[in-house]
Amino acid sequence: MPVSETFPPTDVAIARPVPVQIVGRIPVQSVRPLVDDGQRPAKSVEGEWFTVAARVFREGHSSVNATAVLRDPQGRDHHFPMHIDNEGLSWWSAPVRADRTGMWTYRVEGWSDPVATWQHDAGIKVPAGLDVEMMLEEGARVYERALAELPAGVDGAALAHLVTTLRDTGRDPEERFWAASAPDVLAVLAAHPLREFVSPSAAYPLLVERQRALYGAWYEIFPRSEGATFDPETGTWTSGTFRTAAERLPAIADMGFDVVYLTPIHPIGRVNRKGPNNSLVAGPDDPGSPYAIGAAEGGHDAIHPDLGTFDDFDYFVARAAELGMEVALDIALQCAPDHPWVTSHPEFFTTRADGTIAYAENPPKKYQDIYPLNFDNAPQSAYAEMRRVIQVWLDHGVRIFRVDNPHTKPVQFWQWLIADVAKDYPETIWLSEAFTKPAMMAALASAGFQQSYTYYAWRNAKWELEEYVKELATDSAAFMRPSFWPTTHDILTPYMQYGGPTAWQLRAALAATLVPTYGIYAGYELMENIARPGVEEQIDNEKYQFKDRHWADYEPGGPKAGRSLASYLRKLNQIRRAHPALHWLRNITFHHCNDDNVIAFSKTTIVDTADGSQYRDTILVIANVDPHSTRETTVNLDMPALGMRWDQSFTATDLLIGHSWTWGASNFVRLGPGTQPVHIIHVTG
Amino acid sequence: MPVSETFPPTDVAIARPVPVQIVGRIPVQSVRPLVDDGQRPAKSVEGEWFTVAARVFREGHSSVNATAVLRDPQGRDHHFPMHIDNEGLSWWSAPVRADRTGMWTYRVEGWSDPVATWQHDAGIKVPAGLDVEMMLEEGARVYERALAELPAGVDGAALAHLVTTLRDTGRDPEERFWAASAPDVLAVLAAHPLREFVSPSAAYPLLVERQRALYGAWYEIFPRSEGATFDPETGTWTSGTFRTAAERLPAIADMGFDVVYLTPIHPIGRVNRKGPNNSLVAGPDDPGSPYAIGAAEGGHDAIHPDLGTFDDFDYFVARAAELGMEVALDIALQCAPDHPWVTSHPEFFTTRADGTIAYAENPPKKYQDIYPLNFDNAPQSAYAEMRRVIQVWLDHGVRIFRVDNPHTKPVQFWQWLIADVAKDYPETIWLSEAFTKPAMMAALASAGFQQSYTYYAWRNAKWELEEYVKELATDSAAFMRPSFWPTTHDILTPYMQYGGPTAWQLRAALAATLVPTYGIYAGYELMENIARPGVEEQIDNEKYQFKDRHWADYEPGGPKAGRSLASYLRKLNQIRRAHPALHWLRNITFHHCNDDNVIAFSKTTIVDTADGSQYRDTILVIANVDPHSTRETTVNLDMPALGMRWDQSFTATDLLIGHSWTWGASNFVRLGPGTQPVHIIHVTG
Repeated sequence: MPVSETFPPTDVAIARPVPVQIVGRIPVQSVRPLVDDGQRPAKSVEGEWFTVAARVFREGHSSVNATAVLRDPQGRDHHFPMHIDNEGLSWWSAPVRADRTGMWTYRVEGWSDPVATWQHDAGIKVPAGLDVEMMLEEGARVYERALAELPAGVDGAALAHLVTTLRDTGRDPEERFWAASAPDVLAVLAAHPLREFVSPSAAYPLLVERQRALYGAWYEIFPRSEGATFDPETGTWTSGTFRTAAERLPAIADMGFDVVYLTPIHPIGRVNRKGPNNSLVAGPDDPGSPYAIGAAEGGHDAIHPDLGTFDDFDYFVARAAELGMEVALDIALQCAPDHPWVTSHPEFFTTRADGTIAYAENPPKKYQDIYPLNFDNAPQSAYAEMRRVIQVWLDHGVRIFRVDNPHTKPVQFWQWLIADVAKDYPETIWLSEAFTKPAMMAALASAGFQQSYTYYAWRNAKWELEEYVKELATDSAAFMRPSFWPTTHDILTPYMQYGGPTAWQLRAALAATLVPTYGIYAGYELMENIARPGVEEQIDNEKYQFKDRHWADYEPGGPKAGRSLASYLRKLNQIRRAHPALHWLRNITFHHCNDDNVIAFSKTTIVDTADGSQYRDTILVIANVDPHSTRETTVNLDMPALGMRWDQSFTATDLLIGHSWTWGASNFVRLGPGTQPVHIIHVTG
Repeated sequence: MPVSETFPPTDVAIARPVPVQIVGRIPVQSVRPLVDDGQRPAKSVEGEWFTVAARVFREGHSSVNATAVLRDPQGRDHHFPMHIDNEGLSWWSAPVRADRTGMWTYRVEGWSDPVATWQHDAGIKVPAGLDVEMMLEEGARVYERALAELPAGVDGAALAHLVTTLRDTGRDPEERFWAASAPDVLAVLAAHPLREFVSPSAAYPLLVERQRALYGAWYEIFPRSEGATFDPETGTWTSGTFRTAAERLPAIADMGFDVVYLTPIHPIGRVNRKGPNNSLVAGPDDPGSPYAIGAAEGGHDAIHPDLGTFDDFDYFVARAAELGMEVALDIALQCAPDHPWVTSHPEFFTTRADGTIAYAENPPKKYQDIYPLNFDNAPQSAYAEMRRVIQVWLDHGVRIFRVDNPHTKPVQFWQWLIADVAKDYPETIWLSEAFTKPAMMAALASAGFQQSYTYYAWRNAKWELEEYVKELATDSAAFMRPSFWPTTHDILTPYMQYGGPTAWQLRAALAATLVPTYGIYAGYELMENIARPGVEEQIDNEKYQFKDRHWADYEPGGPKAGRSLASYLRKLNQIRRAHPALHWLRNITFHHCNDDNVIAFSKTTIVDTADGSQYRDTILVIANVDPHSTRETTVNLDMPALGMRWDQSFTATDLLIGHSWTWGASNFVRLGPGTQPVHIIHVTG
């Protein structure tokens, strides 16, 4: 990846002149996708189908055709025949996929199609008796060329036989013409078309990453809370550790999560430490926010002593791996005032006119517990130090990083860091925690973040979910992979505060099915819906204090048995794992419902099995997004989008409750708090 | 222009790898315009205002700013400050213009704005009494930097005084803060902003051409008809000549046209010559179609002997120039079967299986009088020979070429030819006569044609005119300059056949005002509206026969005096010349009318006068597009688009009829066959 070779990037201060390009013999315009006008790679994951499109056309009346070509990292071309979608507007497209990770390229080749030109002309002239023998001889010559250009080893018998037939003046001319449409002729030409004046577009970069970059279920914990205990006699807490947190891992794995994400695990600053509920003064036993990183014990390359040692961390990572899960680490590049960098690297910070180091502020708001990093005073050493810190965690087996507030650091820095890590660890996944303007969200994604938090938490109405997911699944899918979180430790929307258990089921089910990556924050099972007055976050935010959720109370036989969504989440994750249709983003179709609160969508995919056979997997989700009232309505399905005819019926099995119905194009549903808020339906013959 | 240096283009058969680009320190995305995804130059003409836009944003809370920069052919940068159009979507834009012809570049520079950042923060903190002295000292340092970076020769007194004031602890803090908003401080910083981390986008090519490429009124003639005479006794015609055609030039100039366009002037083939009304067999005296080019007397580099000699042609060109007009020549790259190339360059044609040269066909239609050229058999010699032919006409003073059916030749060929001619004759203008699919129309334009015929003849309803002109004036204006023709010698739509004189006035007036270049075909004055049955072209098409229009009959005192639109056209062209607002394309605004047949639009521009002063020129056009009924309605004007307040009134002077009214935001109009179909209103104080 050339982008990682400039360290730090300096030549971007010089405008790059863009030369005028020569039009191809067969013009190919508007190749799509095109990320940042072709300046950044398009993205996919291994095995992911996506569409390459372009406008392809030519002068005169001869036939034109087009091929989408993916070149793999080893330099081998993979051809995908394109079909014309819109003849008037000259749009062609092909579904394509790359079968392994690495930096590929994609291009569109326009070409003149002598076989189609002859088919068209001869198909009119031969039946009309015009220039019959000449047309058949011209056909023979065209197919002779096709035969001559077959790759070595391809059987040309069908073409050779056709050439002889076309020249057999003893036979009926129309019969000779139709011989060109014999299945064996069409088959060999479909695989090896005669392409003339092949005119490639530019070859755009395509970064193919591992499937976890697109698909996975995340579970967020504050490790210090897992196993934390409160002593009522002394009124003090004992912190959880990596060892005690590891005891929670089987339960998380049992719910079917793929990634365990840990909030920052580093020493926490003591200077200006915040107390419970973001109070300005912490008590002597308050643990502080793990986002106020750095103290005498160390900074971003260290572990908070309360959590244990690097050995304990390694144990935690290994235990997660045993359970089939990866660990994601939170990278929050900001410092407490007592972070070691403040003395060792004062150039990493901004010094004010009075000689003090600038704390974070957004006037008139002040965040005196946080010193933001400044990447401009000494970019070279700042970049190198950040890279060193990341290497510490790479060396301890971490391959997923959740980046806190990346939009407060230069986009350029992330582009460089992610690319530089990818040189040696291409499997690394970075999740961007940016809740900001669309341009910045997009820029972080196209610069390299494999995943992005989204506006999902604030998209609750049917129309806004549809609009947003359509954007995510089409225009932005080539560079931004969405992660849907109904809540986080900082986000508790009014919808979740007031929607009751129905809202918590619904928003998890939608997150888990609308997009392939979703996540929840520990305690989601318990529907912790009380907000700190005046802000849209939980009261007693776990950022500032320990939280013992007494998980055992919700187990069978416990005092709160049945008052947890754990089994609902387990079911969602089981459905996700069993149904490949839910592993993809771009395969979504929305269906029409008369009720403006009932949303319906489906995902479908063709699955290749180990034995070489294929089957279609289709999941249909119907949800009432109003958590306050039960609704009855009719769902009108786009049957072709489900792979069926309009008059077909099918078996609809609700995977959440196990019921089956026979459904067709129009179906009655009843959804809401009075019953289940969501159908997740497996569509079968 | 690098594109002309590869002759013929060969390396376009190799996919150009597009490297990943590094994001700038301040990200700049989606620079617009962007032609063919940045592969072809954006276009403008000297002095033409257009908008450069981009998404510019940055990390954190500091202020961002942006500049559009045009670099002239001599390498000097011209800065245009951008303003933010949409804060949420991070879109910035600036009106820009290039003041001379040549290959420029354009780019957008994003930058960090320390002055604005300080203004924002200090503006909150100083009045609130927070960190007052530190904030004022930081301000002093920021303005010190601005002062230090002023270009040599710029007066820094205002900034120096401000720095002193900010540090003057004897004065009121708020007063010191507000000193930074003094007009002289703002003025020097507006001209010379303190720009930090300047981050340029790529520099895209911008081809600036002469104004005639955008603005002009064209008049088409068949030169052989002008002065042709019919002898009723012998029943034969005598062809007009360049000398007799030149006698028509004063009348054309008097009507105010800028360009006289001649249909092809070359020898006409005799083999398979067509007769009147496209009949397959010509009589011995039928002159044939000037589009069937080439005979024993010569080909595309020769003049039809009936028209005269090169000296006569030179006389015609010179006479037009004396009258203030340019001559446009029709380039129809196709051959009659007896064209000299058929024997001298058989490789320029396609040979069929039976050994014959392929004539034009679109099966089952056959055009046996035309051999299309084939540019693929021998591109090098074909390109060179076409270039040689063009040089003949360049050498005889032609600088405008109207290209017949360019969409039947490779786009690549035109791109090369136009660029190669521009190397020595950058003032050359090529008009593309392509009536075909949008992708091809766009590709010919972006490949280099300075002007394009359009779908105007088939856009008659109000909604389709609005939609089409909006597209032409915005999205496609950066690469395609429209030419509006209500009719041509091949196009006579039902609207013109049946719309009566009202339609002929209306369609000329709309063409002349909606876009800066329009054209009419000789005889438009006479409203020749009879079609050959079954086709949408004139009966007795001038392509196949002489036509003596007896112009003198329509002169004052003649038998048909007053039955011509000549004076109407003269008035239209006078208005166009007198009003710079009509010289531009991108300055159009549509206004609302309640009646779906009444269209209203305005164009406005600021005019720089020779004495250095400026004035605003505004033209408002209101037309009833239904030629069959008079309509009364209310026109609701977008007053700010006219440079006025919503409550203002103005003098509306109809330049066609000379009447004036006092108008405001809502105005009654009555338009149609019963009165004038069009108001062309000059808007004044």
